[in-house]
Amino acid sequence: MFSFFKNQFVPSEQVFLHVSDLAIQRGYGIFEFFKVRKGKPLFIDDYLDRFYGSAEIMRLQVPHKPDALKEIVKELLQRNNATECGIKFILTGGYSSDAYTISNSNFIVSPYPLQLSDSISSGIKIITHEHVRELPQVKSINYITGIYTLKRMEEQAAADVLYHQNGMVSEFPRCNFFIVMKDGTVKTPGKNVLRGITRKNILKIASQQFKVEEGDVTLEEVYGAKEAFLTSTTKRIIPITQVEDTVIGDGQAGFVSKNLYNELVKLEDKYLSEA
Amino acid sequence: MFSFFKNQFVPSEQVFLHVSDLAIQRGYGIFEFFKVRKGKPLFIDDYLDRFYGSAEIMRLQVPHKPDALKEIVKELLQRNNATECGIKFILTGGYSSDAYTISNSNFIVSPYPLQLSDSISSGIKIITHEHVRELPQVKSINYITGIYTLKRMEEQAAADVLYHQNGMVSEFPRCNFFIVMKDGTVKTPGKNVLRGITRKNILKIASQQFKVEEGDVTLEEVYGAKEAFLTSTTKRIIPITQVEDTVIGDGQAGFVSKNLYNELVKLEDKYLSEA
Repeated sequence: MFSFFKNQFVPSEQVFLHVSDLAIQRGYGIFEFFKVRKGKPLFIDDYLDRFYGSAEIMRLQVPHKPDALKEIVKELLQRNNATECGIKFILTGGYSSDAYTISNSNFIVSPYPLQLSDSISSGIKIITHEHVRELPQVKSINYITGIYTLKRMEEQAAADVLYHQNGMVSEFPRCNFFIVMKDGTVKTPGKNVLRGITRKNILKIASQQFKVEEGDVTLEEVYGAKEAFLTSTTKRIIPITQVEDTVIGDGQAGFVSKNLYNELVKLEDKYLSEA
Repeated sequence: MFSFFKNQFVPSEQVFLHVSDLAIQRGYGIFEFFKVRKGKPLFIDDYLDRFYGSAEIMRLQVPHKPDALKEIVKELLQRNNATECGIKFILTGGYSSDAYTISNSNFIVSPYPLQLSDSISSGIKIITHEHVRELPQVKSINYITGIYTLKRMEEQAAADVLYHQNGMVSEFPRCNFFIVMKDGTVKTPGKNVLRGITRKNILKIASQQFKVEEGDVTLEEVYGAKEAFLTSTTKRIIPITQVEDTVIGDGQAGFVSKNLYNELVKLEDKYLSEA
């Protein structure tokens, strides 16, 4: 596979960063990840908006304008002869002479294999962990707590870990979180979360059929919810049927989760037919 | 200069990590930094202990035993003909096939120029920021908040930023923190801090002359302190004479700070004469 690095298309095996890069020295960098279906990057403008937003907060310079980035992605897909894949942007703090000061960013675009399932899964167990991501509005490369908690996830046969602090839940390391309350309201945490593009699409779709709220979600509300699910670019929607030792709702993928999954796939198909 | 990488001594300009390394993908890695004076690494056993401790918590394998590491450092100093420098270890999550799972660590040892001042500075201004480092007992490479706050430091002409949460202060991004209370007690935060080696040495030295406490330090206690100072491997002790807009004590480097600085230099000299 080819990647884009230093303004060239090069074999991905040849993309190396010098040890002085702030990503290696200080974990300082951002990224984006979006999916390509039928050769077209889905909701690309939303992902680009967030990428430039993350870069601005972290004081990193994206070395290309949005239109140029779209052209780079297009050519990368052609060179790789890829129509179904994930595309990752990485933007780092660059080669720093004192291992602390931001320098000229290194920018890498790489394709990744992507397996999208065509149907909603039957539901997963998750655990919880007290944590709020640093600069949660930024898609930074910092996943220390996410990877650290993998061990407890394995031990407890859980598929993911939901962050919470002061009784309020926020997000997963790589996914957003929704509940369906007893009265049918679809609710997602409004603070301390990454603004997921799938989250945004779900909020849009859900508001056409259900009452929707963005706001504080307590752990108590989670345990008392009728349905719960996570959203992400690669996973779309996955029902959550158990949180720690508590079964959520009737322990099955719920009506609202299934409905929104189907509507999300339709929204993707609509985007592709119009793009 | 030479570095040690992949079991070889190579020019530092040639130390590159593939983009699939978890340090670049997920900011997942640890490091150590100690100083060398007169060709001898100071307090090396303490730094090695902490390094293996960080690695264990992060589930990373150090590819060498402590004695082998000491030999590597010794040979690196010889090859670089270096007698006064800093040495950094970096241990990363390794080349990960799925960009999330820990793999075989990459391990790098590099020398860095080091300028040690021979006398205590006259004092600095610091600002404060609400934050607790993730896994604070681990010397991880994650400095997102530290680098993010550089901008406000510059704007406010501050030399460093002190983290606090729920009214309790903890540490700086790269230094520990001490105050001297009105009654002469030397106090340092006991929770949510990296166990600095200089911090440990200062606690030892201070306890021979003063009342010493490791425990909760409130912001209020900081503002009301007689003296305040930071400690680090490279900075030894730097007096803090202003926190945000508040002058600490009489705004000058204090008696205890100066005393401990001199005792610390003596302790280093004693270590070198015995090593």
